[in-house]
Parts: sequence; C-alpha cells; structure tokens
Amino acid sequence: MAVFPPPQRLLLGPGPSDVHPRVLAAMAQPLVGHLDPAFIALMEETKGLLRRVFQTENTLTLPISGTGSAGLEACVVNLVEPGDEVVIGVNGVFGTRLVDVATRAGATVVKAGAPWGEIVPDDVLAAAIARARRPKVVVLVHAETSTGVWQPLDEASRLAHAAGALFVVDCVTSLGGCPVEVDRLRIDAAYSGTQKCLSCPPGLSPITFGERAVAALRARTHPVQSWYLDLGMIERYWGEERVYHHTAPISMNYALYEALCLVLEEGLDARFRRHRLNHEALVAGLEALGLEMAVAAPHRLWMLNSVRIPEAVDDVAVRRRLLETEGIEIGGGLGPLKGRTWRIGLMGESSTRAKVLRLLAALERTLPRHGMAVAEGAGVAAGERVYAQADGR
Amino acid sequence: MAVFPPPQRLLLGPGPSDVHPRVLAAMAQPLVGHLDPAFIALMEETKGLLRRVFQTENTLTLPISGTGSAGLEACVVNLVEPGDEVVIGVNGVFGTRLVDVATRAGATVVKAGAPWGEIVPDDVLAAAIARARRPKVVVLVHAETSTGVWQPLDEASRLAHAAGALFVVDCVTSLGGCPVEVDRLRIDAAYSGTQKCLSCPPGLSPITFGERAVAALRARTHPVQSWYLDLGMIERYWGEERVYHHTAPISMNYALYEALCLVLEEGLDARFRRHRLNHEALVAGLEALGLEMAVAAPHRLWMLNSVRIPEAVDDVAVRRRLLETEGIEIGGGLGPLKGRTWRIGLMGESSTRAKVLRLLAALERTLPRHGMAVAEGAGVAAGERVYAQADGR
Repeated sequence: MAVFPPPQRLLLGPGPSDVHPRVLAAMAQPLVGHLDPAFIALMEETKGLLRRVFQTENTLTLPISGTGSAGLEACVVNLVEPGDEVVIGVNGVFGTRLVDVATRAGATVVKAGAPWGEIVPDDVLAAAIARARRPKVVVLVHAETSTGVWQPLDEASRLAHAAGALFVVDCVTSLGGCPVEVDRLRIDAAYSGTQKCLSCPPGLSPITFGERAVAALRARTHPVQSWYLDLGMIERYWGEERVYHHTAPISMNYALYEALCLVLEEGLDARFRRHRLNHEALVAGLEALGLEMAVAAPHRLWMLNSVRIPEAVDDVAVRRRLLETEGIEIGGGLGPLKGRTWRIGLMGESSTRAKVLRLLAALERTLPRHGMAVAEGAGVAAGERVYAQADGR
Repeated sequence: MAVFPPPQRLLLGPGPSDVHPRVLAAMAQPLVGHLDPAFIALMEETKGLLRRVFQTENTLTLPISGTGSAGLEACVVNLVEPGDEVVIGVNGVFGTRLVDVATRAGATVVKAGAPWGEIVPDDVLAAAIARARRPKVVVLVHAETSTGVWQPLDEASRLAHAAGALFVVDCVTSLGGCPVEVDRLRIDAAYSGTQKCLSCPPGLSPITFGERAVAALRARTHPVQSWYLDLGMIERYWGEERVYHHTAPISMNYALYEALCLVLEEGLDARFRRHRLNHEALVAGLEALGLEMAVAAPHRLWMLNSVRIPEAVDDVAVRRRLLETEGIEIGGGLGPLKGRTWRIGLMGESSTRAKVLRLLAALERTLPRHGMAVAEGAGVAAGERVYAQADGR
C-alpha cells in the first residue's frame, strides 16, 4: 500500500477527528527554532488561548509535549508522592488507566467504581472519599471516551474539596466540545488531548494547574519521578525564563495554535451548541434506524455516541464496510464493551450536519447487508427533522 | 507579532534543522485513524526504515511519541529498576540529564566524568565501571549536542559487555548524520530525535532495543515507573496485536516516514559524506575568519560545530544580528559554555554547500560590526576551496 497520499476518511471514531485545512496548512509552514522570538510569541499566545478554552485564569496552562496519556501521567506524577492516597472514579478505560498510572507513582488508590456505561454516582464517590484516610487527590473522567458517559462534576468538586483533596479532571474528550469550566467548578488540575474536540492532530496534551495544585507541586518532598513530565521544569521552559528543557514540537504547536484560533473564532457557546445539535440529530437518526444508545439519555456525551450493536450484526464486518466502501471511520467498543458497542465521535470538525447525514445514509446502506432490516431513508429523515426544528427555533 | 506565516529562517542551530518540503507536505496530508489499515501499514514501514537508519536487525525499533528526551527517559526507565547501578559518561548537558533521569528511576549512578568539550576517555570509563559493584547499564552520549564532541564507542562497548552490562547510547544528534552502527557496535539500546540529522520536525524519538535489552525488559521485577513510556505496552501497540495504548501522533509519523525515505533515497554513505564535507568546509571557513574550534580535531562532530567566541565579541548581539538581519539561527553555549561558544548545526537538510557559504558570508558581514576584524571574503573563499578539492577528487 502506498503511504502517500493517505486515503480520504471521514473520521467519526473516538479520535483523531477531522482536521481543518487551516490547521493542516499551519503544520506545513517552515520551522523556526524553539528559542526563536517568533516561537516564543506563539508559546505565549497559545497559553492565553488555552486559558480561554479551559475557562480559567490559571497561569500554569500549557501543552505537554506528548499525547493525552502523557498529560494524564503528568498530572498524576506531579501531584502524587509515594504513599499519597488518590481516589479515582473508575467506569471505563481511562479511569482504569488512571489507577495504573497512580499506582506506578506510588499512590494508594481508592476506587470509586461504577459499571461501564454509567456515571460514577456522587454517593459512590462520597463513600470512596470516606474510605480513604486523607485523600490528596480525587480524579474523575469528565468524558469517558470508552463508554460515551458524561460525568457530572459539581457535587464531586464539592466532595473533593470538603475532604481537603485536590480535584483533578480528565478533559481529553470534552475540551472544546462541551463546557469545561475549570475555574467555576474549582477544578485544581485538568488535562486534555488535541485530537478530539480541538480537531488538531494528536501529539500534544493541554494541561492547566490552579493555585492549589501549584502549591502542592511546590510543597513536594520527593522529586517528580518523570524528568520529561516534570512540571516545575516545563513551567520554566514555557515561562519567562525560557530555561531549556526539551525541544518543543514546533509544527505540532503551530497546529495547536491554529486549531485554538478556530475554536475561539467560532466561540465556545456556538461550538457547544453545534456539538449538541449534531449529537441530537445523530441520536434521532440512529434510533429511527432501530439502533439503541448504550448510555442513558441524561448522561450521553455530545461528542462520543455509544450505540449498542444489535445481536445479529457483525461488529467488525460493518465497521470494515463503512471504512472501505463509505470511507467513514467509527470506533469499536473497548474492554467489556468490545463487540457490544460502536463509538461514533462527533468531535470538532467532525461534528457537522453534512457529516451526520452522510453517516446515517451510509448506515442505511450498510446495515441491511449485515442482517439488520432498516426502513430506507428513515435515519436521514429523522436527522433532518432535528435540523429543521433547530433552523426554525 | 503575527504567528503565521512564521519568519523564514536558515536553521543552523542545535536543532530543529531545516525540513524538506516533502516532509512539510506530508504533515499537511489529511489524517486517518491510528488503527486505520493505512496507518498500520505506515507504522510497519517506518519500523523497517528505522532499522536501516540505525543499522540494526532489532525487532523492537520504533518512534516513541515524544521528543528525544522522552526517548532518553524511555530507555532509562525500561532498563533500570530501583537499586540498579548505572554508569554514565558525563561531559555535557545530556550526560548530566541522564544522571538526573536515572536517579529519579532509583538507580545508583556512577559517573564517568570528563571536562565539557572533551570525550570521556576509555580509561575513565573503565575506572567508573570498576568502581561500580555490578553495573546493569553503561550509557554514553554519541554526539554531545551541548559541546560538539564525538564520543568513540568501540572500546566502550567492549568494556560495558565485559562487565556484563547493557551498552546504551544517546544518538539524538548523530543518527542520520554519521554512522550509528547499532549491531556492529553491539549497542543494546539507543534513542534518537527526529529534529536533528533526520530533518523531521521535533516530536518523536526513534529508539531501538536489541535482544539483551529486551531480555532485561522481560526480566523486570518492578513495573516500569512510566505508563506512557512502558515499552512492553508500546511494543504491543506497534506490534501485530495492535493493543491500544495511546493515540500515535499521526501527522508526526507521516513526517517521520517521509524524512526516513529521504534519508534512504540519498543513501547513508552519501549522507555521511555530505555531512563530513560540509563540516570540513565550515571549519576551514571559520578558521580563515580567525575563529577557533572549541573541540580538538579528532573529536569534532560533523553535524554540530562548537566555535569559541572571541573575547571581544558579544555573543548575544552577534546571534541576534544573524537571526534578525541574516535570517540565520545558530546556537549559543549551554551550562559552563554559555557565552563562550557558538554551536553551529549542519544537520540533515541544513548541511549543504549553499547554506555553509551563506553562513560564512553572513559572519563576514556580522563579525566586524561586533569588534572582530576579519579579512573580507576569506571565510567563503576557504570554504569554496574545500568544495573545489572535493569536486576534483
């Protein structure tokens, strides 16, 4: 298979999402050095843009030079010292991953577990916090990419702070697609990824640390176990001192800058409304096709739609046909949901009316070939009705 | 300052180096998913291309999803367990960094030190190995980017293996610019960066692990402290199983693939000769201008040329004028060499006759403005003579 040009795909999986041509063009710009005044100016502007997207005033807001998982690990290893207690909400892949990372950092982990596909209820979180002797950190996954669950954060934040803990949130999939109100929710630290609702290629992980988290960083008695992710050093590299740490990924930072500009040109509110509307149209269309959502209505993410795979339908065959014949990527289930759910991402540039309708039409063509009877045109029509209603508002 | 388009620079610093238009074009290609058959094919091809550049048959050869420093940390944390003894050659920034990273991983570090700007002599290394009780790993920096020193590896490899240790080499700046003969030199593990002689933007770190290193990985009794850099997991993601770990930076991998193709289209031998010739022309030109190289002739790197800054000359003013008026980036000194040396990188796409002569001409214009008398045209003429000689060969 020739590597270039890569095949044209409509990316409706769990990420990466489609990337705007302006972001692709930014990556094709020639490089400057990482200490060039032009790059330093870009770093400063990027920090400001990220603050707006995270809805925070936090000074320590910057992209970690790795993917979302590097941001996850950065938050954990900078805040956790050996023996610290960490309460983690576990209802999918990313909560499970947080347990692994925190354990490797020497934490004593207390899990607040819930079935995959459901939220972590406040009482379960409260009980886990109560089981911990003196939790230093409470972590929740805002948007569980593995299940499509939207975790409520208001009461969780109150519970964490009442216990004297830092409140840390995984916003990998939520940032840029729904409100991530870091300051209003008193989130002490958060991390995200670039390849979801920011519609930038994968490779960077925006993080933000508030005053209490920074204080915990300063009060450490053990060095951060990771040199590459040591925020004290990264902060000086991204700060006024410009103390050399690593070489920032220049082109990826060009891309992130341009992607953030696009987010803010659209405006956060308009962007969130767009994600919501396309989600609603997709759900209407899927249900009209006889498919069933895997997450209860109040807890469905707008950007990651988990759909039950009907008994008679072959998961892999459908996804392969969508990819090869229709040029559309959707995601399969992970862990216990493998073979049981599809994950349809409507993130950033992938969340548009045209793309939702294209997927619904493709499903109408594909599902009957794989043993599922669907009324011709029903999915697209149901989606269209949602858009028509919105147009009439 | 407007961020786009970035200023046009000739990158003759310690990296990033100039990037070929084909690599920039590759990054502007639309994305596919990281589990797309097209991306999996690219991953497979990339592993093969990396093996050729590393001159190895090692199966475990792939790019880590972070910059060179992430590759450094990956090698250390995967090979070192708490209490292990590690012997590290320390004669610059990167040896010093290795000590920091290994210490954070719980290693007992024995330093084989040498003054910055000199190699670590074999007898110093032998003495350090002898001081260690039972060293598990011996690490040397092949091309010390902070000083321009080319570390010989033959005898060091013999010493490391005679002591039963793994021999690990930092090839961040050497790979693609001079021979990095992983198999012939019995290097057990090596890491590099993309933004030096591979002339790809920064953001990935190619690594290679040989059989003995893989055996050490398998024999670990403690989990690798970094989840993000856990090679056992990364290996399964890049291997046939494709077990989801993180989301590989798609566009950066497009870029690396294209950059590796360019390296191998030129051919390693031709590429090394080119780096050598441009280095020789640069040195002749610099010396004709009355400048003095900071490293003794037998140990000078071809791709990173350290030059003493004459007493009367203002380091920062010269570099600023080169950047702002001539559009050329060169590097300053680091650590004890700050203000005392310039670092001129001739890496990958930046190592050409036209670029060497452009720099020499720019220095001829710049140095007299900053208190150094130079004979007009002497630098370019001396460089030209080296090229003429080579043409006549």
